[in-house]
Amino acid sequence: MDTDSRSGSKATARPSSSTSELFAGTYARGGVAEAVSDRAWLQALLDVEAALGGEALRAEDIDLAALGQDGGEHASVVVPLARRHFAETHTGATSQDILDTAMMLVASRALPPLLADAAGAADAAASLAERYREAPMLARTLLQDALPTSFGLLAAGWMVALDEARRVLAAVPLAVQMGGPVGQRDPAVSAQVSEALGLADPVLPWHTNRMLPVTLASALGALAGALGKVARDVTLLAQVREGVDGRGESSAMAHKRNPVAAVSVLACSRRAPGLVATMHAAMEQELQRAAGAWQAEWGTLTELLRLTGSAVAWARDLLTHLEVDAEAMAREAGPEPDLGASALLIDRALREHSQ
Amino acid sequence: MDTDSRSGSKATARPSSSTSELFAGTYARGGVAEAVSDRAWLQALLDVEAALGGEALRAEDIDLAALGQDGGEHASVVVPLARRHFAETHTGATSQDILDTAMMLVASRALPPLLADAAGAADAAASLAERYREAPMLARTLLQDALPTSFGLLAAGWMVALDEARRVLAAVPLAVQMGGPVGQRDPAVSAQVSEALGLADPVLPWHTNRMLPVTLASALGALAGALGKVARDVTLLAQVREGVDGRGESSAMAHKRNPVAAVSVLACSRRAPGLVATMHAAMEQELQRAAGAWQAEWGTLTELLRLTGSAVAWARDLLTHLEVDAEAMAREAGPEPDLGASALLIDRALREHSQ
Amino acid sequence: MDTDSRSGSKATARPSSSTSELFAGTYARGGVAEAVSDRAWLQALLDVEAALGGEALRAEDIDLAALGQDGGEHASVVVPLARRHFAETHTGATSQDILDTAMMLVASRALPPLLADAAGAADAAASLAERYREAPMLARTLLQDALPTSFGLLAAGWMVALDEARRVLAAVPLAVQMGGPVGQRDPAVSAQVSEALGLADPVLPWHTNRMLPVTLASALGALAGALGKVARDVTLLAQVREGVDGRGESSAMAHKRNPVAAVSVLACSRRAPGLVATMHAAMEQELQRAAGAWQAEWGTLTELLRLTGSAVAWARDLLTHLEVDAEAMAREAGPEPDLGASALLIDRALREHSQ
Amino acid sequence: MDTDSRSGSKATARPSSSTSELFAGTYARGGVAEAVSDRAWLQALLDVEAALGGEALRAEDIDLAALGQDGGEHASVVVPLARRHFAETHTGATSQDILDTAMMLVASRALPPLLADAAGAADAAASLAERYREAPMLARTLLQDALPTSFGLLAAGWMVALDEARRVLAAVPLAVQMGGPVGQRDPAVSAQVSEALGLADPVLPWHTNRMLPVTLASALGALAGALGKVARDVTLLAQVREGVDGRGESSAMAHKRNPVAAVSVLACSRRAPGLVATMHAAMEQELQRAAGAWQAEWGTLTELLRLTGSAVAWARDLLTHLEVDAEAMAREAGPEPDLGASALLIDRALREHSQ
Repeated sequence: MDTDSRSGSKATARPSSSTSELFAGTYARGGVAEAVSDRAWLQALLDVEAALGGEALRAEDIDLAALGQDGGEHASVVVPLARRHFAETHTGATSQDILDTAMMLVASRALPPLLADAAGAADAAASLAERYREAPMLARTLLQDALPTSFGLLAAGWMVALDEARRVLAAVPLAVQMGGPVGQRDPAVSAQVSEALGLADPVLPWHTNRMLPVTLASALGALAGALGKVARDVTLLAQVREGVDGRGESSAMAHKRNPVAAVSVLACSRRAPGLVATMHAAMEQELQRAAGAWQAEWGTLTELLRLTGSAVAWARDLLTHLEVDAEAMAREAGPEPDLGASALLIDRALREHSQ
Repeated sequence: MDTDSRSGSKATARPSSSTSELFAGTYARGGVAEAVSDRAWLQALLDVEAALGGEALRAEDIDLAALGQDGGEHASVVVPLARRHFAETHTGATSQDILDTAMMLVASRALPPLLADAAGAADAAASLAERYREAPMLARTLLQDALPTSFGLLAAGWMVALDEARRVLAAVPLAVQMGGPVGQRDPAVSAQVSEALGLADPVLPWHTNRMLPVTLASALGALAGALGKVARDVTLLAQVREGVDGRGESSAMAHKRNPVAAVSVLACSRRAPGLVATMHAAMEQELQRAAGAWQAEWGTLTELLRLTGSAVAWARDLLTHLEVDAEAMAREAGPEPDLGASALLIDRALREHSQ
Repeated sequence: MDTDSRSGSKATARPSSSTSELFAGTYARGGVAEAVSDRAWLQALLDVEAALGGEALRAEDIDLAALGQDGGEHASVVVPLARRHFAETHTGATSQDILDTAMMLVASRALPPLLADAAGAADAAASLAERYREAPMLARTLLQDALPTSFGLLAAGWMVALDEARRVLAAVPLAVQMGGPVGQRDPAVSAQVSEALGLADPVLPWHTNRMLPVTLASALGALAGALGKVARDVTLLAQVREGVDGRGESSAMAHKRNPVAAVSVLACSRRAPGLVATMHAAMEQELQRAAGAWQAEWGTLTELLRLTGSAVAWARDLLTHLEVDAEAMAREAGPEPDLGASALLIDRALREHSQ
Repeated sequence: MDTDSRSGSKATARPSSSTSELFAGTYARGGVAEAVSDRAWLQALLDVEAALGGEALRAEDIDLAALGQDGGEHASVVVPLARRHFAETHTGATSQDILDTAMMLVASRALPPLLADAAGAADAAASLAERYREAPMLARTLLQDALPTSFGLLAAGWMVALDEARRVLAAVPLAVQMGGPVGQRDPAVSAQVSEALGLADPVLPWHTNRMLPVTLASALGALAGALGKVARDVTLLAQVREGVDGRGESSAMAHKRNPVAAVSVLACSRRAPGLVATMHAAMEQELQRAAGAWQAEWGTLTELLRLTGSAVAWARDLLTHLEVDAEAMAREAGPEPDLGASALLIDRALREHSQ
């Protein structure tokens, strides 16, 4: 078939087709973009069907674009998918079962690269905290010059926030949703699918109880917020620069070096709060299946995963290559500040981080 | 070139590559999706370069994906675009000039199909108002049965809201932004580009004054909200159904007919308020170019245009094909209600609509 | 009665009792707080009742707190108000008619002080633009040092944004809402009340068409955003300071002077986007009266008016007393920058402002 | 002093002066309103000062309104508080230490009544699940009639969501914040204050790491969302009604009974997502003390606590008094549906609830 042959061989070349390619360098950096791409979503849908007894299919073999168009006619991409590919093995799961469980599967595959980048970013912050443990800098409060502190303590603060955000995110439960047409499917099915897919088995189907997606969204938003703070600080500090050769050179102004990584983190993190709000607002789901609120989640959660993934990939890069002009900082801080409490706090935070 | 040859011939088959194809049937219906696609954005960037004296290029001839990746390294897709294609004719415009003006150009090309669908939806509502001018229905307030009214008046209310939202949106000014590196470019350039592109010429460059994008975003959000109200009503009315054959049939329940268009409108409209909030929050832009807030706008405004465009395309379809069981409605409303004021109001509203 | 006697004489001393008094210095500065206070709301409710033929009462004579508690039992404060005070003259208006029209009346009384402060802020920015028309400053883009511009042009940019935001806000229509129990009241009543209260007379009752409140909310949010940009710039500029004696002195650090007005503007403006989103999300109102979305508007719009009012009062103060160290700015900008285009743009903007 | 004498004796009569009294019946029900009132905030500030060695004062003895006005001049109410009342015992804590720790203390005092109401609501849902374990109802998916299920299962779904939301909220850490002027205070002080106030002792001061407030806000938002779902269902079910005598009677329509509690829950829960977004957006805090984002938190978190508290108080009332017309439900569901899986799931959920 024409379309399939096209998408077949070229698919690998265009991985993150589920977002803008034009702005992908900013909004879709790192491993998460691929893990939440259309193809990854489709594979997750197929994997859920397989766990329910359907044939094991590969996303590459399916005409994704046609599926997407037909999905519109049902307000669910699962209807045409099931009709075309699982007509004989369809096992009584509804669209929502397949979609909700696939959404969790997508998340479970996106979180490892995301958390790895978050850990890498936290480690890089830890290195800065250790290295600049006694490097004085002039603190700024309300953006005004205040008293001396150390750059290491600022970096330790970044690290602690990233560690807390990672912990919260890693603890979010990801569970199958197998309610059948109206939410009362035999729990044995849920147990079996949960076993097959490595997801948790919930007490009840959560077709209109959206604690899971909203908990995930909130945790992603919090991580994005913690990253935004790091990036904001970097843009404000005249004595640090991003140390990746060639990046951020200004065509118009030769002396200028743009904080590309920090700006990219912020471009993503600034988009998170609105998406978190949409997920929270979507909790009000009617009776046994929502008309609208549920269907609003798919794109929103996908975007939130991708943007947070991009923000953390950029932040890891930023922190790993950050160059600090400690001498200039020290000059600004003035002579011999007492950084005793600062060092004590850094040591304490580093111990906690390394555990 | 390999990539170009690929995107060349197939581009038309995959128009809206800047969003998910898998969920495109829901989130990207109608003519707006194509008008805000990656390719449309790229063409707008090229058109702005051309208006500034650059060569006139076609988006089809450019390797969009590679551009997007390289754009990441500069937090701006314009830097690699200018280096590759406008190195000799580059005319002193900064990234932000090109991007902001292209964003307005994209909007100016997305609004006609969007407003046409909105007008079509309003006209369809007007037809319903006229046709069911004296058709009794039982009003529901706080979702409880209340007193009789007419279905025509409900439809007239939809129509008035759509007309108001259209008017507000059509009045949003779309202007070029030509500030040069720090916002003080010779206004003659702005005038020339504005003339060439058919956009307004602003008093000052608006590089960090974001009234224009936020006014556009608010108007889109308001239209989405007005559409959401229509769709919500349709999901709540037991005596109306969407009259498109074959759409929304339930595989699990033969008797059931899903309100696909209404649900799709809501799937889009529910995502709008968070995006509007992001645009409002992005107004706080630092000094002569923002580090983060500006770069957060590109994806947000594009998504808001696309989702509102999809909502309005779905709503037009919904209202055009709505089937009303006027007899069942009348039975529920009880005997001979007085609908005099209702008819008066409908007439008044229809006169206003037809002007 | 005990409670009445209390509220009677003391009311004037505690005007803005409808918000926190503890944080009122930050969140409730200027004339708007009083205009959106509980007492102002109550007076507006009474004025609407009077326009409908009820007795003309004064808010001071009513036990507001008791009314509020009883209102909870009806999800509407109008029910106990009508029972206690308008039992004999009640004219068929529903709770929503009274409340919606009162909300518009409250807005119509809050906007004059708000717009006056916005005009004052814009004038103050104009004075800065004129005075520092040729004062060089080093522009910062992405928060990095860029090229010279003038401080006057920065101030002119603030002015233009404030003028645009004022224009948008001043053009928001404020109309009565008189739909009766289910939205089909005789339009003569609407015309009469509109005449009596100086509000517009809408085509139809807008009980579940929320274009008006959302248009108002969006315009307030846009003004708040424009103010936030001004305040952010002030916090970032080392060479300006707020020139109000005694304000912002730091107890811990004698050399430090906190940018209190700028911080207060931001404390308010940062709260606006979320409130705007709530108003947009509340547009999805069911059938002839919404169960929840409508009732969410009261507090949200009130808060948005108050916070925007406070932000603009602080910003006017900020801009009026801003002290600029033009010499330090010029040193940073370097020798003899060409500010020709800058001056041209300022003149153009000032002409537009003075029209 | 005149003002003190006024506020002194009357304070107890006007507890929740930090919000609107006029709309308090809707937005400020239950025990949380008092726990987050101005007076409660002031007492928390005083308690933190006392824990740092200051004199133990009572909020009743302080002129709160004057403090609030003066606080505006410092963008912090702590500055005038310390000057007037702790001039001699002031112990080096900055405004932010006192305010952040007081915010946690306020939260720690608001959560017990809030969680108690949430537990009460969950218990009431459990009773409904048990009582209506085998009561058939016709499920509605996408708001269309679907297949039979049991009302007990719907109630069990509410219960599970409430239990999950309670668990998440109860696990939010509440910690002191003692960073001194720039975030590097001796950790012994933090330990001591934490001991005195019964709050956790964090690894580092979190002056610009806002994981704690945002985690609290997200958890509140999630609970509000879970409550909104319950209330939405109640408004949609024709066969249930709120069983509180006299409440919700319509003056205009005698037959009508308004779902006051459900509407009130929704009036509050609809306001939560925007506030959650504001808290997330406020995570981007600059360097050692934020200029604006931090100061935006005070009112936002207070409002979110109050609204969630009111929603949960209303929901508890709603669920406790819900009257179900099981016969009418059964008629609609049709003859002898198989509810085996439903009963199994209910039992499983009830076991989990009772643990």
